[in-house]
Amino acid sequence: MALETDFIDRLKAMAVHPAARGLADDCAVLGDLVLTHDMLVAGVHFLPDDPPESVAWKLLAVNLSDLAAKGAMPVGVLMGAGLTGDADWALAFADGLGQACASFEVPLLGGDTVSMPQGGPITLGLTAIGRVTGDAPSRSGAQAGDGLYVAGVIGDAGLGLAMLQGNLPPDDSLIDAYRYPEPLLHLGQLLAHQVSAMMDVSDGLLIDAGRMARASGGCLNIDLDAIPRSVAARLVAGDGREALLAAATAGDDYALLFTAAKAPIGLDGQFIRIGCVKAGEGLSVADHEGPVPLPARLGWLHG
Amino acid sequence: MALETDFIDRLKAMAVHPAARGLADDCAVLGDLVLTHDMLVAGVHFLPDDPPESVAWKLLAVNLSDLAAKGAMPVGVLMGAGLTGDADWALAFADGLGQACASFEVPLLGGDTVSMPQGGPITLGLTAIGRVTGDAPSRSGAQAGDGLYVAGVIGDAGLGLAMLQGNLPPDDSLIDAYRYPEPLLHLGQLLAHQVSAMMDVSDGLLIDAGRMARASGGCLNIDLDAIPRSVAARLVAGDGREALLAAATAGDDYALLFTAAKAPIGLDGQFIRIGCVKAGEGLSVADHEGPVPLPARLGWLHG
Repeated sequence: MALETDFIDRLKAMAVHPAARGLADDCAVLGDLVLTHDMLVAGVHFLPDDPPESVAWKLLAVNLSDLAAKGAMPVGVLMGAGLTGDADWALAFADGLGQACASFEVPLLGGDTVSMPQGGPITLGLTAIGRVTGDAPSRSGAQAGDGLYVAGVIGDAGLGLAMLQGNLPPDDSLIDAYRYPEPLLHLGQLLAHQVSAMMDVSDGLLIDAGRMARASGGCLNIDLDAIPRSVAARLVAGDGREALLAAATAGDDYALLFTAAKAPIGLDGQFIRIGCVKAGEGLSVADHEGPVPLPARLGWLHG
Repeated sequence: MALETDFIDRLKAMAVHPAARGLADDCAVLGDLVLTHDMLVAGVHFLPDDPPESVAWKLLAVNLSDLAAKGAMPVGVLMGAGLTGDADWALAFADGLGQACASFEVPLLGGDTVSMPQGGPITLGLTAIGRVTGDAPSRSGAQAGDGLYVAGVIGDAGLGLAMLQGNLPPDDSLIDAYRYPEPLLHLGQLLAHQVSAMMDVSDGLLIDAGRMARASGGCLNIDLDAIPRSVAARLVAGDGREALLAAATAGDDYALLFTAAKAPIGLDGQFIRIGCVKAGEGLSVADHEGPVPLPARLGWLHG
């Protein structure tokens, strides 16, 4: 982890072009183009027995979620696929990618296919290209006085992962939330011009909110009780502080976290206010019982 | 290999967007944007003891070479880096990438960094984005009657690789040709509007020429004696048919192969005519002694 941090710091030092946004945003923004590249590695970002179709879906969805956070319309993707000798897996993955691309109406434009040496691991990368009209919001625009909002639900995917790991009895809708995340492209486009800052929640609400706070130079105050959760998640895990903290640190949500001076319009209430921005730094979390100490682990650090 | 072919065929079937060029070109071409993504995997595309700076250079150069073949000006790159725990390697690689980006005046815009599980292999992907003015040439435009040309030299990198593998006494300039290929960006831009077809030679002159012949629906006639080779390569390997065939099948050249109805102007002779396009299909190779049977192996198939 320290290695990754040092490596990324070294890259940040060289990424001085304004389009790179200091490598501190979800995407690069080059004129009206929005560009992102995320990797998935077997055993790190997906489970070895996840269905290959679901891995293809996730590879596309996590990148489109980055575009959603910029309010971008996807225009195409390029894929780098490092395969093993498992032909059934590879062909099912290819079919799944085709279905996912069709579902999001985004064309596969190119890429590269290689064989990994000595059996793996399967290593996938995808570059998504999108276009914006007007400015793409960044993580760094949150202002003291803004409201803090979430579109989408928090914690479903984390419960689904726990189920796949055998730690909870299975529930199809929560497992699907882990395997088939939905990038909020339409909401992102409706929100982009109404927010002061926006990002997608991929590594955990708290860790990602902390990144927004740091990028913006403010303190994000979060009302833990207000975090939007699905009925299925509440049935499985309840509404206690522990369940809420687990949801807020679980990751893989692909919800949108944003700040705005006033509540956005035209979204039929498909978002919820979970707090506000104040002067200061970092996170301040509370629930109906009072202040909530930050847990040691705020989310995933796998990048 | 059959797996890769089947997988790529499956992807081709879904890549119906015209910008994808059927996944049969060096790049996707989306309006004035040119996009490419190539991967390098340790043990497959580079040697484990290649200097990390040279791996960074090559990662950038092989992608920029694809842009060169479309006559594109690079505007930025995104990198996906799957690292192992070797911090010295990673930081030297990052520094090398910075130097390479500075050398080509192309900004790093974004990407992703992950840790590979269980020690590797180091797996790198890079997406290069370029812009063209006018149409980007494809592989498929060669016409019967066109001349066939190469800009750059053929075979140096293959000799350098043989030296690094201990099969030949070392020569710095040839080893550098393998480790630090030069994408012919400026030549590509000068050529783009004067050619009927163009591609970069990455897997071997013969295998890549065969791809151009197939894409264009013609027969490429190649005069083996005319293949441009460096003085260093000729000193090491001589000018016999075997040496020329080795050069023409070695790969990693990153020269430009193109066809044109008349010899391009304004390039100060930085290219050489190596043959012509005729009706038919495939390749027809000859030298001063007469027809040359095609070798069983025309180049690299690692994609």
